[in-house]
Amino acid sequence: MEQNRYTDLDVSYRILLGPGPSMASPRVLRAMSTPLVGHLDPDFLQVLEDEQNLLRFLFQTENELTLAIQGTGMAGMEAALSNIIEEGDDILVGVMGFFGERISEVAARYGANVDRLERPWGQVFDPDEFVSKIKEKRYKFVALVHAETSTGALQTGIAEIAAAAHQYGALLIMDTVTSLGGMPVEIDAWGVDVAFSGSQKSLSCPPGLAPITVSPRALNVLQDRKTPVGNWYFDLLGLLKYWQAPSTYHHTAPISLHYALREGLRIVYEEGLRPRFERHRANAEMLWAGLEDLDLPLLISREHRLTTLATPQLSPAIDDAYVRQQLLNQYNIEIAGGFGQLAGKVWRIGLMGFSSRQENVVLLLAALEQILRKA
Amino acid sequence: MEQNRYTDLDVSYRILLGPGPSMASPRVLRAMSTPLVGHLDPDFLQVLEDEQNLLRFLFQTENELTLAIQGTGMAGMEAALSNIIEEGDDILVGVMGFFGERISEVAARYGANVDRLERPWGQVFDPDEFVSKIKEKRYKFVALVHAETSTGALQTGIAEIAAAAHQYGALLIMDTVTSLGGMPVEIDAWGVDVAFSGSQKSLSCPPGLAPITVSPRALNVLQDRKTPVGNWYFDLLGLLKYWQAPSTYHHTAPISLHYALREGLRIVYEEGLRPRFERHRANAEMLWAGLEDLDLPLLISREHRLTTLATPQLSPAIDDAYVRQQLLNQYNIEIAGGFGQLAGKVWRIGLMGFSSRQENVVLLLAALEQILRKA
Repeated sequence: MEQNRYTDLDVSYRILLGPGPSMASPRVLRAMSTPLVGHLDPDFLQVLEDEQNLLRFLFQTENELTLAIQGTGMAGMEAALSNIIEEGDDILVGVMGFFGERISEVAARYGANVDRLERPWGQVFDPDEFVSKIKEKRYKFVALVHAETSTGALQTGIAEIAAAAHQYGALLIMDTVTSLGGMPVEIDAWGVDVAFSGSQKSLSCPPGLAPITVSPRALNVLQDRKTPVGNWYFDLLGLLKYWQAPSTYHHTAPISLHYALREGLRIVYEEGLRPRFERHRANAEMLWAGLEDLDLPLLISREHRLTTLATPQLSPAIDDAYVRQQLLNQYNIEIAGGFGQLAGKVWRIGLMGFSSRQENVVLLLAALEQILRKA
Repeated sequence: MEQNRYTDLDVSYRILLGPGPSMASPRVLRAMSTPLVGHLDPDFLQVLEDEQNLLRFLFQTENELTLAIQGTGMAGMEAALSNIIEEGDDILVGVMGFFGERISEVAARYGANVDRLERPWGQVFDPDEFVSKIKEKRYKFVALVHAETSTGALQTGIAEIAAAAHQYGALLIMDTVTSLGGMPVEIDAWGVDVAFSGSQKSLSCPPGLAPITVSPRALNVLQDRKTPVGNWYFDLLGLLKYWQAPSTYHHTAPISLHYALREGLRIVYEEGLRPRFERHRANAEMLWAGLEDLDLPLLISREHRLTTLATPQLSPAIDDAYVRQQLLNQYNIEIAGGFGQLAGKVWRIGLMGFSSRQENVVLLLAALEQILRKA
């Protein structure tokens, strides 16, 4: 290797309008360059305490066990599932896109017997479908995706599904990766037992931390396990000993990412949940209207549409890869293609957190118009 | 919650001389504040490619499967163990401190039958002990700690142990968390099959990434598994599909930490391995001499002493907690106490990466002298 092979880090400046990561606020980037302190330093433990309080505010919960797992959003999913599952447990998973599939796949690694409730990608469930299915068997939990990142669909009727789950002795586990921070997620009001998310979407922090919250009901299940959690790194009772006094060593926390998440959560707190959700909605509405004007109709019906992620459908005349390449190379704009069942059929356009800005919508629509007109 | 409850992030400026995290270079901190790009952006995939090449340089290996796991050092340990273990495998673990214990504990979670070779904390193994034990059973692998962070001891004779393991059909897995980047780690020359480390010690990056390297021999074992890896997030064959072309989505990589790790590795590359190891040794020797002058004799004999982490023994007259509190509160210096069998008996003083500086040694010794004289 030559000495000069490794140049200064020099990545392009991108406008991130894909399904995440979103753009980080300059405040968050600045927080990350703060010099490190130790993971048991009293100053750092205060950062973690602030973070827990801010996460409770964000999840709208009183759950004591509310923290950020030391990994990306997928780590949040794996932590949620593996802490509850013991080998042979029956569970029910709602699959209406890629991340429902992922839940099934990860749950199976931990020895769960997975029953699936399925909908074609792009649809959502009638809550009654869950309610009927829940009655059929003694499930340990029901897992569903609140905001399906692969399709742009929002599952509604969560409170109803949670109530049915509880009535039949099951917990409700919910993936909020693409909703938390951009759309209402009301853990206590809805009765959700375990919810997880990621730092890099509507919280606009760098990827690498996965907020999670666990209800007292689910915590009891965790404490009553007969076998150890199938992994060590995500074992919530082990993590709790670090996150709460007297804070004994478990792992070396990713200090800088916590600086960033605290700052990102502080920004959410300052903006306020309602104004933040309204901003996401206003920018999404503007995007939807513009896409329709460009003859890119939305895949998801209006009442089940995420305001954080839109999925316009492509006519066969559109060269999917070419347009996205042009956006990236000519305009430095990242959007994403569809994948799985929706590959080549939709784009995924995120307006999350700091990326949800009027000027980004205007720019994207203008750029798309220029590219589509030329093509 | 009041609006003004969450102030600007304002942590103390610390001189980090504990067992990690070490201080990050200003270059690394600056890299981290670079605006985000997407995890599939061509510019980011180039960052990952540079990182893989630099990690091969650092591990002194040609192993194709060489990357950084998206988690802290403990994630590296869990990835190494869980990818190789299938339920019921017999394995042999060398336990001469806390992290050998951890290996046993994590391996048991994945269903391994763990045989232990033990030494009191602070001692190391004669390689022959491993060689004799390896002959007794058909072990899938032998795991040992190269640099035991709880005691400051360096295990030598790795090549000999690896040769015996291979002769009897076993792999060698090695924890290099506290050696990599500060002391020689020669994966190919020694014949190590899997080694893992952390970003936050002698690489002086923030915690959150765990370098790992896997030999072709171990990769074969991985590819021949009869059951899926017991977790999803650390499944190396899944990770490899992301790290290598065509780079399909697995998880959303912690972009900023990769910016940091690439920069930290670039600093190692520019300094050169030999000069870097010599710097660590020179500063360690200065520290050792100064500690002995202060009547703080080292726990570990000179030939098995880490140059990255010293463990001076405390006389009963010394108030362990008081001295460390004074260091932190009066001088902003972090060192760590002993734990487990060594709680109250030693301190753990790290001189790792950017923290391994003559001025830090001089300051620490002067501060210790002032505190001990007053006490």
